[in-house]
Amino acid sequence: MSFIRFNPWREEYKKPFGAIKENDLARLSIEVIAEDVLQVFLVIHKDGRDEQRVLMTEKENNFYSYRYFFNQGKGLYYYHFEIHTKRDNQVAIDYYGASQEGGEGRLFSRPEDTWNFQITCYRQEEKTPDWYREGIFYQIFPDRFYNGNEDKRINSPKPNTFIYASEEDDPLYVKGADGDILRWDFFGGNLQGIIKKIPYLKKLGITGLYLNPIFEACSNHRYDTSDYFKIDPVLGTEEDFKELVEALHQNDIHVILDGVFSHVGQNSRYFNVNGSYGKSEGAYRNRHSPYFSWFNFIDYPDNYESWWGIKDLPEINKNDQEFQRFIFGKENSVLTKWNQLGVDGWRLDVADELPDKFIEGIRKNLDMFDEKVLIGEVWEDASNKISYNVRREYILGEHLQGAMNYPLRAGTIALLNEQQRPEAVAKSWTRLYENYPKDVFFNNLNNIGTHDTERILTMLGNHVKKLDLAFGLMFLFPGIPCIYYGDEAGLTGGKDPENRKFFPWNRMNYEIYDHAKRWIDYRKDNRAILEGDLSFFYTDNLFGILRRYENEYVAMLMNPTNYPKKVNGNLKFIAEETPMIQEIQKRLVNRTLNENSYILISSKQKEQSISRLQAITEVTKK
Amino acid sequence: MSFIRFNPWREEYKKPFGAIKENDLARLSIEVIAEDVLQVFLVIHKDGRDEQRVLMTEKENNFYSYRYFFNQGKGLYYYHFEIHTKRDNQVAIDYYGASQEGGEGRLFSRPEDTWNFQITCYRQEEKTPDWYREGIFYQIFPDRFYNGNEDKRINSPKPNTFIYASEEDDPLYVKGADGDILRWDFFGGNLQGIIKKIPYLKKLGITGLYLNPIFEACSNHRYDTSDYFKIDPVLGTEEDFKELVEALHQNDIHVILDGVFSHVGQNSRYFNVNGSYGKSEGAYRNRHSPYFSWFNFIDYPDNYESWWGIKDLPEINKNDQEFQRFIFGKENSVLTKWNQLGVDGWRLDVADELPDKFIEGIRKNLDMFDEKVLIGEVWEDASNKISYNVRREYILGEHLQGAMNYPLRAGTIALLNEQQRPEAVAKSWTRLYENYPKDVFFNNLNNIGTHDTERILTMLGNHVKKLDLAFGLMFLFPGIPCIYYGDEAGLTGGKDPENRKFFPWNRMNYEIYDHAKRWIDYRKDNRAILEGDLSFFYTDNLFGILRRYENEYVAMLMNPTNYPKKVNGNLKFIAEETPMIQEIQKRLVNRTLNENSYILISSKQKEQSISRLQAITEVTKK
Repeated sequence: MSFIRFNPWREEYKKPFGAIKENDLARLSIEVIAEDVLQVFLVIHKDGRDEQRVLMTEKENNFYSYRYFFNQGKGLYYYHFEIHTKRDNQVAIDYYGASQEGGEGRLFSRPEDTWNFQITCYRQEEKTPDWYREGIFYQIFPDRFYNGNEDKRINSPKPNTFIYASEEDDPLYVKGADGDILRWDFFGGNLQGIIKKIPYLKKLGITGLYLNPIFEACSNHRYDTSDYFKIDPVLGTEEDFKELVEALHQNDIHVILDGVFSHVGQNSRYFNVNGSYGKSEGAYRNRHSPYFSWFNFIDYPDNYESWWGIKDLPEINKNDQEFQRFIFGKENSVLTKWNQLGVDGWRLDVADELPDKFIEGIRKNLDMFDEKVLIGEVWEDASNKISYNVRREYILGEHLQGAMNYPLRAGTIALLNEQQRPEAVAKSWTRLYENYPKDVFFNNLNNIGTHDTERILTMLGNHVKKLDLAFGLMFLFPGIPCIYYGDEAGLTGGKDPENRKFFPWNRMNYEIYDHAKRWIDYRKDNRAILEGDLSFFYTDNLFGILRRYENEYVAMLMNPTNYPKKVNGNLKFIAEETPMIQEIQKRLVNRTLNENSYILISSKQKEQSISRLQAITEVTKK
Repeated sequence: MSFIRFNPWREEYKKPFGAIKENDLARLSIEVIAEDVLQVFLVIHKDGRDEQRVLMTEKENNFYSYRYFFNQGKGLYYYHFEIHTKRDNQVAIDYYGASQEGGEGRLFSRPEDTWNFQITCYRQEEKTPDWYREGIFYQIFPDRFYNGNEDKRINSPKPNTFIYASEEDDPLYVKGADGDILRWDFFGGNLQGIIKKIPYLKKLGITGLYLNPIFEACSNHRYDTSDYFKIDPVLGTEEDFKELVEALHQNDIHVILDGVFSHVGQNSRYFNVNGSYGKSEGAYRNRHSPYFSWFNFIDYPDNYESWWGIKDLPEINKNDQEFQRFIFGKENSVLTKWNQLGVDGWRLDVADELPDKFIEGIRKNLDMFDEKVLIGEVWEDASNKISYNVRREYILGEHLQGAMNYPLRAGTIALLNEQQRPEAVAKSWTRLYENYPKDVFFNNLNNIGTHDTERILTMLGNHVKKLDLAFGLMFLFPGIPCIYYGDEAGLTGGKDPENRKFFPWNRMNYEIYDHAKRWIDYRKDNRAILEGDLSFFYTDNLFGILRRYENEYVAMLMNPTNYPKKVNGNLKFIAEETPMIQEIQKRLVNRTLNENSYILISSKQKEQSISRLQAITEVTKK
């Protein structure tokens, strides 16, 4: 009988934890207890290259180790182990690779079936400025937030569009029989509206805004850009924009814009199907248009490549030099214009559609300025994403500094609706933490809902206590928490357009607001949360998140079930046992958690108030 | 060989022309030239009764006559003739009846095939007050006329409705996949808007308004009444309504409302499906509702009779006593309320759906007041209309005083688009004139377009000169001309909703406006037009309308073709030749009319100006 074990989440097996910087070393150690171990090999290859079989020569107490030098450049490295033993006078080979859920691996019988562990190797630390790294973000879909006009007039309504009769109306797409949008619908939120609500944001504790697109477009979401150099007149003027940026900065709130560069609107200045920008302007109407080279025409002019086949959104050839200069050139470019006006960063829409070289160009533009941030829209684990058959390198340095963290939302919903076991969620998030370069993980823009997802409250069955747990997870997670406007006020709704209701200024759910505000206050200036390592612990029913920074810790144990649960002696920690963990164990064991409640404990319990509403020291939320 | 002729449109054959009053006599004379005339019979029956065969005993110059006494009460009388002659020593019988196109009849070979002539017998003259009879009407679809708020704010927008972004927007129904309206759309015209545009109406020469429904409802057309006692808040308040009526009356403009009594809205106070009028109010929600008896439930509550199967419009049982009291009771009824507030008359929506007894009740209510007018929506010849297997008596006295004249519009379009020959159009209109009691015909509310039809300009291929001819016909026709708002300003559009665009205040077509205004001015105080007999004349291509009052006449000859046409000596008149007609012949013969032009002549040529724009005396419009 032999015993073989490797767990990349523990330092005795892999050190350091997680992703490795180029030209750094990682020590990999596999524990093998067997009668006649002949040889142990590390079988490793860089993504797309040949395998190396390395004999693990260091041996100490049943651990066979090798210090691997990551000198083949940034990218993904995949590895497993081969253990040669003598059994019955023959050489037996065991293959040890990754398990499906992550963490401790398992044996495989054939090399071709063996799953590899992943190590992400990155080029550089992606330190973002403190304003971002320590920020509390808030996402605003501008048409749906607030109308700053005293008389609630809509700025420059677009011809042949609908205005909602009241801010309480349910959003509705006006579609024809073929499903095409016949007419766009507006509530009339605008930039002055955001300015007027800065006191609200400030009081809530917001320090950064992510704005959905604000450039001229036909739709209410403005992902169909018409003019990259112009604020949509429905939202206001460039003066309004400058006033907004200034007012935000005066209030220590930074602002990130949505960069939509994969496609434009068919009626944009650049394509101009309907001629609204001039009879012979735009690529659709003029082969000599300066924008002609941006597009791929299959049969001019009516057959052209478009985003996901939606003719309304002609796709851009992002390798076109003219387009690149237009977007991120040093001077007179889109990015330069808005960066000079004080924009603090960009969230790249559909980053998967943008070639790495294009993202690199954007990053270079931002790096000309001080303290700008670049985040990308990626829905999955961004470390190993393949799009259009190309392995993406956008989080390995010199490209994106972080991604939108949708796996956080997915795991939160699965956990709180009891669709996944606490252990499974803990492991899937640990694997994400392992795969991302640490700085990138801490730069992720975390969300439990955006303009592209159902409202979190709706996904949680309108369960306000579950929503409190969800906020707790987001606010204790590494990365920058970003509240989707109205999630703190009780907005509900399914998929688009229901998730884009107008902010319920006159019907706020203050219970939810208070929960959100308490979590915001708790996070701020809490080193363990802002900088600490991430780990998880769990029982069959209970889920715990643990953040540790030097001698400090914060731990939240939650009961996502609809029944009271007692903590028996069986809390399982992903991290190695330490005195700190023993202390946490001790503080939590035998405690009973009511349904959908949590216990929040921290090393600073004696000094720190969690909120203006809540008792000091240890908090049990019922 | 025999020669037989009868033409009810000439006095030598039938006197008087047209409909007959109860207990009056009409002399019918048939001309028979044959060798051996044995007997001539008038075969006549009242609608639904047995035939009488009356021997025509009076004989003078080949005319066999009979004075028929209409003593069987109001209704339709049908007749033809039997002529017995001796041929080849046998008795031959000729059957003489009505031709398809009207006027002179024709022979039939068998009695059962013979078409009857119609004589309409009415109970009483329906004299309407001069304000109506001499009026120039204007139909306003209130949501689409003018917003009287300085800031263009919409009064009390309804929840979950859409507001058009601009008054230039094209109307659009917001429908679901199953064709149901998902959300109503409003431009926000209102009562204060009408008040503010009184100077415009006054200048145009308008003396009466027909308003599409104004009571509270869910839709923008308000044919789905929610509350008969309340002005729709989108349009304004009852104070606004009083102010409107007062302002109109001060400006000598009368006002007729739309009476929609066949059905209500499903979300009305009376039916209340969505509960907006209270959780247990309305027939749908409460069998003990005071309105329960109004409706016919097949399977309570969800299966109920509705107008044309449209569930949104629960149909009312108009025989229900409670409903009758509610609508036209002496006191506290809908009609009494609004009549007391100064409404001058009513246009009954879908008169065909209202039993004659119900219409009679409405009329009795109106007759309690001074000078109120009652008009009905009927699309065809109202004299012989059958609805739900019942012959309608609504224009035979004590019911409607007139109908909306849709056959005028139909003939105008057919004539001007050359889809029907001038002769056919002349005859179809003469037959209508013949069938209606004369007063009713002069009470008809004439139109060349309404909220239920395509815009006349669109139907005429956007041909402004043809539109001028159409206006000419309407303004020279007996009955009250009624301009559908915006037809005078160049509005275009197909069927609903395109025919309900907002009035183009900033884009008026002044050429069309001037045409309309000229016709209005010409009609006013012109006895021949206001009171004169109606007749027509024509060639193969040209069409003429003739109005004669004592020694006065007005005649308009038009060329609806797209080529110049010369009047040769062959103008055919429906009327008998008289010195007046000889004069008209003389004045028109050999004249050339350019394409889509007209010649307008009158007996007052020396004294009367047709308009501020046009030369005095004879006018040739090119």
